[in-house]
Amino acid sequence: MSCVFCAIVAGDAPAVRIWEDDEHLAILDIRPFTQGHTLVIPKRHTVDLTDTPPHTVATMTTIGQRIAKAARASGLHADGNNIAINDGKAAFQSVFHIHLHVVPRRDGDKLKFAKGMLVRRDPDRGQTGRLLREALARIDADEKE
Amino acid sequence: MSCVFCAIVAGDAPAVRIWEDDEHLAILDIRPFTQGHTLVIPKRHTVDLTDTPPHTVATMTTIGQRIAKAARASGLHADGNNIAINDGKAAFQSVFHIHLHVVPRRDGDKLKFAKGMLVRRDPDRGQTGRLLREALARIDADEKE
Ligand SMILES: [Zn+2]
Ligand SMILES: [Zn+2]
Repeated sequence: MSCVFCAIVAGDAPAVRIWEDDEHLAILDIRPFTQGHTLVIPKRHTVDLTDTPPHTVATMTTIGQRIAKAARASGLHADGNNIAINDGKAAFQSVFHIHLHVVPRRDGDKLKFAKGMLVRRDPDRGQTGRLLREALARIDADEKE
Repeated sequence: MSCVFCAIVAGDAPAVRIWEDDEHLAILDIRPFTQGHTLVIPKRHTVDLTDTPPHTVATMTTIGQRIAKAARASGLHADGNNIAINDGKAAFQSVFHIHLHVVPRRDGDKLKFAKGMLVRRDPDRGQTGRLLREALARIDADEKE
């Protein structure tokens, strides 16, 4: 079996890491719709909504919520976010290790978003990753106060 | 305040109900992308991912997972599903009471899906609702065995 997300989790393939704990990893999508397009990935390999435990789906989504909030608070200045799980090939799933998309959006970016779906490119992923990590760290710090 | 989802929850506006418990309601989208397009709605009004408690986001998603499984098992014969939360006007949110979309998909339905985004119409919502409710009831029964 060769799974690109399992390889990233194991550290055998590169990725811009946004967030991590024992059970989940969040990385920048290598082909982003918009700047900051992030994937939340459970470390344990399952395929889609048919074989992933509900608690994993739940946790994956609350991590996505934190990243969505971070995108708004970050230097990316998102005004909103699309959260999505593509469950199955019929639903555009392309990597068969379940993951949740967080796609930061800006007011009036419809055309840019449509173009991003075709181009899927971030000229400075390192900087994008820094902006999201900083905002997540601030959110964590605020919650601990 | 006038919120169409709060009105549906209160029973003051009509909807084809798919599933319900004390805290959440699932209904057919009145303007479906595909047949069986369902919305999972927390009964307590919040706007988006910035003000909705994480446990609500988590539960809303696991209910969506159950409906996605039901769509596959149902007479709709879905091969997959898109699950989505549109967080904010910038992200195409149009009703400002948070909700999760479950959009059943069929293999090779890309053109039909694209057309559905424009037409957004189900000629027999009553029958679609019955098919999903039956499949959910079967899933519940199987889990209790
Ligand atoms: Zn994997
Ligand atoms: Zn409401």
